[in-house]
Amino acid sequence: MLVVAAYDIAITSDGGTRRLNRVSKACTRYGQRVQNSVFECLIDDLEFLKMRQELTNIIDPSQDSLRFYVLGNHYEHKVIHVGTKNVQDLNGPLIM
Amino acid sequence: MLVVAAYDIAITSDGGTRRLNRVSKACTRYGQRVQNSVFECLIDDLEFLKMRQELTNIIDPSQDSLRFYVLGNHYEHKVIHVGTKNVQDLNGPLIM
Repeated sequence: MLVVAAYDIAITSDGGTRRLNRVSKACTRYGQRVQNSVFECLIDDLEFLKMRQELTNIIDPSQDSLRFYVLGNHYEHKVIHVGTKNVQDLNGPLIM
Repeated sequence: MLVVAAYDIAITSDGGTRRLNRVSKACTRYGQRVQNSVFECLIDDLEFLKMRQELTNIIDPSQDSLRFYVLGNHYEHKVIHVGTKNVQDLNGPLIM
């Protein structure tokens, strides 16, 4: 099934950047980044459970937000894209 | 029906901040912000068409990305939230 995972991490808070990097890295193991903080994951129920637990353990629930959308197995006409498919790497190294 | 709209705007590009503000403002007319660049919209087909056209006209398709997920009318069990429901206002005025 297709699951969309979106996150907002409070990067200006203590440890925020580290949490952001960890969430981002964990998500890449489950799916494909489609926007800077949005992943699309083709996973089964068990993987989804694992993913949720893993991400929940990383975030600070008082400051960060995770939101999952379960689009099921017939998602072809439920996803509409406009614009570039390139993702800005806001977490990459800053080259001066 | 529930439509999730997510956007990535290349804010470091020319006019990027202006496009971001315009996209954000347009989205608030159709739905509820749930994360910094994710909105959930309870709209019908016609409103969805209008929203898509409006946002498509604002963005720079060579640099920005819009992604829509159509969750239909029975979405109660398809949306899972973890963590804070507060949204960081990254676009708000910076108070020194």
